[in-house]
Amino acid sequence: MKYNLAIIGLGNVGTGLIEVLIQKKESIKTSHYIDIEVVAVCDKIRGSIYNADGLDLNLIAELANSKRSLDEYPDAQHGMDSIQSITDTNANVVIELTITNLKTAEPAITHVRTALSHGKHVITSNKGPSSLYHNELRKLAHDNHVQYRIEGTVMSGTPVLRTAQYGLAGCTIHKIRGILNGTSNYILTKMEKGAEYDAAIKDAIRHGYAEADPSGDVEGWDALAKVVILSNVLLDGNISNADVRKEGITELKHTDIKHALSEGYRWKLIGEIEKRDGQIIASVSPQKLPLSDPLANVMGSTNAITFETDILGPVTIIGAGAGRIETGYSIISDLLTLHQIQTSR
Amino acid sequence: MKYNLAIIGLGNVGTGLIEVLIQKKESIKTSHYIDIEVVAVCDKIRGSIYNADGLDLNLIAELANSKRSLDEYPDAQHGMDSIQSITDTNANVVIELTITNLKTAEPAITHVRTALSHGKHVITSNKGPSSLYHNELRKLAHDNHVQYRIEGTVMSGTPVLRTAQYGLAGCTIHKIRGILNGTSNYILTKMEKGAEYDAAIKDAIRHGYAEADPSGDVEGWDALAKVVILSNVLLDGNISNADVRKEGITELKHTDIKHALSEGYRWKLIGEIEKRDGQIIASVSPQKLPLSDPLANVMGSTNAITFETDILGPVTIIGAGAGRIETGYSIISDLLTLHQIQTSR
Repeated sequence: MKYNLAIIGLGNVGTGLIEVLIQKKESIKTSHYIDIEVVAVCDKIRGSIYNADGLDLNLIAELANSKRSLDEYPDAQHGMDSIQSITDTNANVVIELTITNLKTAEPAITHVRTALSHGKHVITSNKGPSSLYHNELRKLAHDNHVQYRIEGTVMSGTPVLRTAQYGLAGCTIHKIRGILNGTSNYILTKMEKGAEYDAAIKDAIRHGYAEADPSGDVEGWDALAKVVILSNVLLDGNISNADVRKEGITELKHTDIKHALSEGYRWKLIGEIEKRDGQIIASVSPQKLPLSDPLANVMGSTNAITFETDILGPVTIIGAGAGRIETGYSIISDLLTLHQIQTSR
Repeated sequence: MKYNLAIIGLGNVGTGLIEVLIQKKESIKTSHYIDIEVVAVCDKIRGSIYNADGLDLNLIAELANSKRSLDEYPDAQHGMDSIQSITDTNANVVIELTITNLKTAEPAITHVRTALSHGKHVITSNKGPSSLYHNELRKLAHDNHVQYRIEGTVMSGTPVLRTAQYGLAGCTIHKIRGILNGTSNYILTKMEKGAEYDAAIKDAIRHGYAEADPSGDVEGWDALAKVVILSNVLLDGNISNADVRKEGITELKHTDIKHALSEGYRWKLIGEIEKRDGQIIASVSPQKLPLSDPLANVMGSTNAITFETDILGPVTIIGAGAGRIETGYSIISDLLTLHQIQTSR
């Protein structure tokens, strides 16, 4: 089967995806009988290219990595905007990779709605649309007989949504707990090693683990978006941001961390979702976990999720929580799932 | 789609499977459009029953749990042996759950070969056939256009094979490391709390975590079988038991464990498989892991596996390693995978 991709947004993750495709396209073709072509790329800053027969991935990577304009790409139509790249091309899968906006979900939400309503599959790692409008988008995809897949919104390419939906199929998940934000976990790890909060943040910014304004991470907004997504995708919830109790790590002190550790505990920023009598109870907050808890031992920028199930008890997955290549891979992972489901209909 | 199961072996796992089916049959039917009927059960001690229209699961569970003979079951044909239960029934999926024999794989291997060559799918958690004859059985299944599925051979129903094969599809796994034997991990945990080796073993036997003869666990044979399976199933290996360097935990002393811990390390029995230049290098041995390693913090009878991948780096799954219900569930999990693959052909 052939999948023609339109990639909307050629930032870190978009470029990571192109690089994973360069590396994996042939082996995926051999192992999974899938032909992947990128037919359109559109980026607000870098411009846009479209060629119905497929674009040269190496050339796109070269232009992106040297921060040059896509206008320099030969043999392609230029000047399409993001909507045209979705609607006026032969793409059958739209990859939405613009910058996440947790307040309005724009421009991603417009891209996703446009693609789905035009009968095109959507794969995205953008947390905006799913944290604000997941159930609407799921219905829109269903009504248009296409798929809306979002593995990369939680723990990048580490297969957590897939494992919960397929690997644990037949089990009932009644609780989900996770370290969902790498930046705050990195800061807590630094503080355990002796740094005070402000110094740990500066270190995280210097090493590229945090933005210049780290409030979205340390105040828990990023983890909150993932909690909403996990609730609505895996526990059939219908909650919004306001339903989640949120507290960041900004009040934690070096001495709190040391004191807890001396008693066999470790502070972690935990996203927690429980389904009790059909009701979702969700929170993001610092929790003092016993060191015997697998989540207590997840250090640095690594993420982890524990699914509490009726049959298997707790199942924990630990892995990368972010990264351009890891998140780029999440798109491939979703494309393989999409293909498997398409061919099983 | 309808799946008629013949269950060969009604011990702990077989009864666990019946109980999971009682609990989950209806919800699986609703969610996955699969009709599951158990048409035949055959056990060397309890006897056998066959009814082409399906058997009453509650009645089977009642007889099994009160250690009564299946001869007491009404409305069924009695007296078939295991081979007849496979070949002379309308079962299309054979569930092999006899006791594991790591030396000859009998009687399981005969059951599996018979079923596959008669064009029946096989699902098993029995480690014998796959640790000794996996590649032969994979070919036999392929030639007969049926599936041979073995999720439960490693970490019971915790989805490790499935995650590696599907969730990590597109990634290359170059190394696998795991705590694959719950009994030895339980003993090491007890020893850390102060017990000497002999006392820890007695405790494990008393709590049902070890057999009266625990040599298969503490000498590493059980972990070795799983290492062979992981090599041959996930890394395209073709190795046998003799290719795996094996050392058990029998030489470890309480003082070794305490000493390591004081230096920030923990002794674990680790199964390790690496693929280097196309060659498999496999071992089971006690390793002194830094506490920063996710495997170092897996305590008690819990198991865990870390897959080292090219794209995502390490991905670790922690969960139940054994248990009658957990392993019973592995069969359902495999049946759902089998169904998904059948319908995608």
